[in-house]
Parts: sequence; structure tokens; C-alpha cells
Amino acid sequence: MDGIGRAAVEAERVLARSSGESRNQALRAIAAALRSNQAQILAANARDLKAGEAGGLSNAALDRLMLDDARIEGMARAVEEVIALPDPVGTIAAEWVRPNGMRIQRVRVPLGVIGIIYESRPNVTCDAGALCLKSGNAAILRCGSESQHSSAAIHACMAEGLREVGLPETCVQLVPTTDRAAVGCMLAGMTDYIDVIVPRGGKSLIARVQQEARVPVIGHLEGNCHVYVDGAADLNMARAIVLNAKMRRTGICGAAETLLVDAAAARTHLAPIVKDLLDAGCEVRGDARVAQVDRRVRLATAADWSTEYLDAIIAAKVVDGVDEAIEHIRRYGSAHTESIVTEDPMAAEKFLTRVDSAIVLHNASTQFADGGEFGMGAEIGISTDKFHARGPVGVEQLTSYKYVVRGSGQVRR
Amino acid sequence: MDGIGRAAVEAERVLARSSGESRNQALRAIAAALRSNQAQILAANARDLKAGEAGGLSNAALDRLMLDDARIEGMARAVEEVIALPDPVGTIAAEWVRPNGMRIQRVRVPLGVIGIIYESRPNVTCDAGALCLKSGNAAILRCGSESQHSSAAIHACMAEGLREVGLPETCVQLVPTTDRAAVGCMLAGMTDYIDVIVPRGGKSLIARVQQEARVPVIGHLEGNCHVYVDGAADLNMARAIVLNAKMRRTGICGAAETLLVDAAAARTHLAPIVKDLLDAGCEVRGDARVAQVDRRVRLATAADWSTEYLDAIIAAKVVDGVDEAIEHIRRYGSAHTESIVTEDPMAAEKFLTRVDSAIVLHNASTQFADGGEFGMGAEIGISTDKFHARGPVGVEQLTSYKYVVRGSGQVRR
Repeated sequence: MDGIGRAAVEAERVLARSSGESRNQALRAIAAALRSNQAQILAANARDLKAGEAGGLSNAALDRLMLDDARIEGMARAVEEVIALPDPVGTIAAEWVRPNGMRIQRVRVPLGVIGIIYESRPNVTCDAGALCLKSGNAAILRCGSESQHSSAAIHACMAEGLREVGLPETCVQLVPTTDRAAVGCMLAGMTDYIDVIVPRGGKSLIARVQQEARVPVIGHLEGNCHVYVDGAADLNMARAIVLNAKMRRTGICGAAETLLVDAAAARTHLAPIVKDLLDAGCEVRGDARVAQVDRRVRLATAADWSTEYLDAIIAAKVVDGVDEAIEHIRRYGSAHTESIVTEDPMAAEKFLTRVDSAIVLHNASTQFADGGEFGMGAEIGISTDKFHARGPVGVEQLTSYKYVVRGSGQVRR
Repeated sequence: MDGIGRAAVEAERVLARSSGESRNQALRAIAAALRSNQAQILAANARDLKAGEAGGLSNAALDRLMLDDARIEGMARAVEEVIALPDPVGTIAAEWVRPNGMRIQRVRVPLGVIGIIYESRPNVTCDAGALCLKSGNAAILRCGSESQHSSAAIHACMAEGLREVGLPETCVQLVPTTDRAAVGCMLAGMTDYIDVIVPRGGKSLIARVQQEARVPVIGHLEGNCHVYVDGAADLNMARAIVLNAKMRRTGICGAAETLLVDAAAARTHLAPIVKDLLDAGCEVRGDARVAQVDRRVRLATAADWSTEYLDAIIAAKVVDGVDEAIEHIRRYGSAHTESIVTEDPMAAEKFLTRVDSAIVLHNASTQFADGGEFGMGAEIGISTDKFHARGPVGVEQLTSYKYVVRGSGQVRR
């Protein structure tokens, strides 16, 4: 691992001096290599799938692991989308002149070496590697053992692309999964080499990272997202937003997990919204007042308010106005994404100001919690941290800055 | 400590809802309380000084600890300077509209609860507390035991000011120094309460924080700052900048610690620059070529290149152009602040681009490494981290942000 760390720092130095165009050329070569090595990637993936079946992986896990022509093409296209993003490195975030004539610029620079620890989905190899490369960072990737052959085949395409344009292959390194101590080493033993760790995985990985990491972490905790339907909500809009926020895709972190309905709208709005959800195949776990509106509603338990289902299940509760909604979100939420539906601008502003989540929306679906939907391009995840990066983590969030000061002989008094 | 943590989180919520004007009112009341309680502060300081003398504190440490009328007035004025800063909370850092009509704003919000662990100088109690309050954060302060009575007296003024304007006293809490376990607890046991730790102190504190902290840290490592005099430097400018960078104040983190002179200018520039330093009372520790120009130069040892003297001592070396200067800084520097003196724009751009320090200057003194000199107002320190905040850490760097999205019923396809 020491050798990997040193190589990453060497690669970082080369990247720091590389042009955005040369990094884009590498990405173009990587996209081409993914397409031309499709057969090798599929063969490697077949080995992983076979081992996964033998090892008793769930169908959902096998589906996340599975690659086919379309998914490989999707990876190549994702790389091309990253190419199309503006180059964050060297951009001037702010600029001003001091009274003594010194011109100060805050200039974006890469963070350095980014360690990414991830599970099952092999495409993260490519997505994360491409985002790091675009932003001038060296990447040290550690995939889950279940995707080891697929990830290695994808990584080989990245190495091929880098080689082709004359950048060091070590700009993106894949740690061998045979090294069982590698995760612990990345978290705590490579502080001289790794500048930041990005974990992509389930609760046990996140818990381990929080416990062990001795380097900064860009964390992606759960998304226990809320939609609050205010008393002054337009009924049709509320129905459309709640159904979309919950059911468009239930497995993403921006999917709504709890519905809060203002008591003032309970008589008019609650029944149709709940019926929409039930009819769409969603299980509704409601408090006593919600349970009254439809016999298909199950009674919620205390645990439901804190649960990220990532499934066609929603917790539902009647609250006494925007204040109780805010208090409920403060108590049970994960500070990811919450939405208020209302025609009352005062209630909206109160909600947007007081709810302390990475993303707060007024009259829009929580499913917009996504870097692409924000117009920020591809993302490495949604940060629920407040430190460094909050919300979608795209190429800009993978940079730091430095101050460049141009003078004409100024000395300080 | 649990009670302190809970109180801080409660105070943070009140602060999150407070107006910038009410926080400024509190700061005004604090400045007034510092002035009206001068006698009590001086009496408390006398107890600390007596204990410090008995305990064998060095004269430098006693001087840092000592307060007098002028220093208390300086604290009050520093609070007033913080009042004059623009309110960072609620400002819109970016704003854009998506093709679907959603308006997205990135809005600054407080980080939450900031823990500050500091040594000797009692004025940090007031400076750090004021910056946290201005930026809407609750503060948990832990001073060194040597300043306990002074810090308590200053903290009492802050509590008085907060009380006067109806904000919770717990917005700024001082941890009793009698609790020996408090530092460890702040670093690792209060992750539910503390959002970020700012250590202000010597190497042993910094090392402990890096070892133990389980929350994000805004670090302030050493400033082993360099001035590189290029072959194309204007001699008079180089003399003025080197002398100022080293000797204006030797004890600040932006003071130059190593002088690098281009071999191309060694014959013309080296002797007068070295003579200026020696004549000003600076000890010069040079390599063999530097030692040739003046018999007062001592020969440098390997350790000199890595040493932050914070004293009237400078290491000096002849290098072979800007490339060797950059390589020397990469190897020995602390990524704080470095300056190039040259009339050659190509050499300047190479240095400014390749040197990976928080602050890089062209034709200006390293002593400008200061939030006030940058026009950013008072600072809590200079960060040598790349994560979250780099360079001067002022009120803006004590904030996070959230995304506020305003729609008109948008759902995601």
C-alpha cells in the first residue's frame, strides 16, 4: 500500500501540471477503451456473477453487479458527460485588489489524492475515476470483493486510456481486493498520501469509516427525506409531487421516505394523496389519523419515522402546521433533502430557512436531489456533511483553492 | 461535558434563527462589557500571572498571558471590527435557474457548533467567540490552564453581552479547566454535538488533535515560509521584501524562515540581502555559497531547511533557478505561504502555479499572510489544510451552505 500511496502522489504532481485538455483526451481514450474492451469486461463480469451466485448474493445485489452491453455503453457515455463539464482546475473563484495594489485571486486547485471505497456496483470504478481525473486528482480505488474481476477489467480500460495520452497509469489505481488490510490502511495508515476518503456503500461501511478514518471524509449518509404538504398546498400539485418523490425511483437517496400532512389539509388532501400511493403499489405506514383514511394503511411504529426504506414504503403522519413539520424533520431526518408543498410564501420561507438539510425544496420533488438535475454534472454522491462539501459532490467539490497574490514590491507595515 | 454539548446545540438553533443585527447587538454589548469590566479582567489576569511565575512559565509565555489596559481595549476593538464585517449567514453564494424553471440558490449557513482548543493567549477567548457568534455558530471554548482566570473573566463579559440582548449565554461556553478530560472529550466524545474543532496552539496540541479527533478539524500547522529571489529580481525590491518577510515580526506564521536565491543572482543580489539581514540582527544559517558572502553567516545543517524558527533566524540557500526553488519548497515547506521576487513573468507564473501552498505571492512580502491584510477581516487562523478552508479562516470559512430550490410543481421524469 505504501507503494500505491507514493505512486499516487507522484501521479498527482503530474496531474497538477497537466492541462484540462490532456485530461479530457485521457477521458476520451478511456471511453473508447471501454467500448473496444466490452467482451473482456463482460467475461470478467460473468466470473463475478458466478461467484456471487455461488456465494448467495441477493437478486438485488446480483442486479447491481450485472453488466451488459447497455450498461457498458452507459459507462462510456457517463465518461463523455464528464468530458463535457467545464474544467474546474485553475478557474478563478474570486478576485479583488487591495488598497495597496496587490491583486488577490482565489484559484481552484485539485485536492490531491482521493481514496474511494465502494461496494458492489462496478461502474463506480469508472465514474469515480473519471471525476477524479477531470478535477486533476489522483484516485486510489478499493472495490468490493464481489466486483473484483469486473472492476479490474474496467480499471484496465482506464489504464489503457491514460497510457495512450502519456499520463501515468497510476493516476487511477485499483487496490487488489486480495489485500484484506487495504481498507483499514486507506482509512488510517496512508495519511501521508491520501487527502480525502469518499466511501460509497451501506451503513456498515459508513460506520467503519467514521470510526477509523484519520483523513478527511466526504460522507454520504442515508437520505431519510420528507415531503411536507402544507394546509395551503395546491391539491393536484401535492399529489403529483408526493407520488413522484416516493415512487419515481424508490432506491435512490433522494426518494421520499416520510410524508407529513398539515392537519389543516387532512380532510381535503390526505385521502387522495394516500390513495395515489397505495394504488401505485406503495405500502403506507401511517399514524392513527392517516390510518383512518384508507383501510390499506398499516399503523406506523416509532421506528418508521427514522427509517430509510429505499423501497415502495412510506411513513405518513398528520402534523400541526409547518412548525411541527420542521420539528419532526429536525428530530428524525438525516439532513439530506426535504420539500414543502404550499401556496403560502410565508410557510415556504419558514421551511426553507429553518430546515437544516443539504437541499430544501419548495413545490418540487425530492427526487431532484442529484448533481445532474442541479446542472452540476456527474456527481460522486450527495454529501450530508456540512464540512467542505454539502449536497451533490461534483468535480468542483473535488477541488480546493489557493490564494495567488500579485504585487509590485509591497511590504507590510 | 454532555450538558455543555446539549446546551451548545440548543444555542445553535436559536442562533440559526437570529438576525445578523441581533448578533451584532450582542457583539456591541460584549465590547462594552469588556471595557466596563476591565478591573475584574486585570485582577483575574494578575492571578494567572502569579501562578505562571510560580509555575516557571518563560518570559515569552508570561508576555503572551499578560493583559493591560491597552490589550483589553485591543480586544474590544477587535470585537468591533468583527461587527463591521458583512454578515456571511444567508448570503447567496450562487444562483441559477434550471431549464425546467426551478431556481436554485446556494445559501450560506452556519457550521453549527465549533469547538476551539487554545493555549496561553487569553484574548483568543474573545476573538474566537466573536467570530463564531458573527457567523451564527455556537462556540465551546477550552483555554489553557495558565489563562484560566483571565479567560473566565473575559468569558463572563461575553455572557453578559449575550444576556443583555436576549441571546442564550450558552452561545459561547467556556469549559472549566479543572476538567482534565475535557480536551479528549471535545476531540472524540462529543461527535453528536461538535461540528468542527479549531486547535490554536503548539505542535504537541496539533499532534494530539490529529491523533484523537473524531470530528472535522480546521488545522493550523506551522508556517515554514520561503522567499525565492529569482535571477531576474529587482535588487532593491528583493532587499525590501526579504527584510520585511523575515524581520517585520518574526513570531507570526507568515514570517519567512528560508531564503532561496537563484544562482544567476548570487553574485549581485546575495551579499546585499544577507548583509541587510545580519545588520538587522538576524542570524543567517547558509549553505556553503551563502557562507562565502559574509563571515557572520553560520553553516546551515539539514534540520534548518525544515525549521519554523519564529525568531530572528533565517536559513539561506543558493538554488539553480525557479525549478530547484519549487522542488526545495515542495520537499521542505509546510504549504503555508511562499513568495517569488522576479521581473520575469514566466518565472513568476511557473512559481505561482506549481507551488502548492495556501498562499503564493509574486513581488510581495510573506507577512501579508493574514485575513485582515487580505481584506477578509479578522481570522481565527491560517489553514494549511486543503479540505474545507485553506489560507485565512475568517467568518465566511466558518460557514457551510445549503441548496434552496424554488419550484412551481416540478416532478422529475
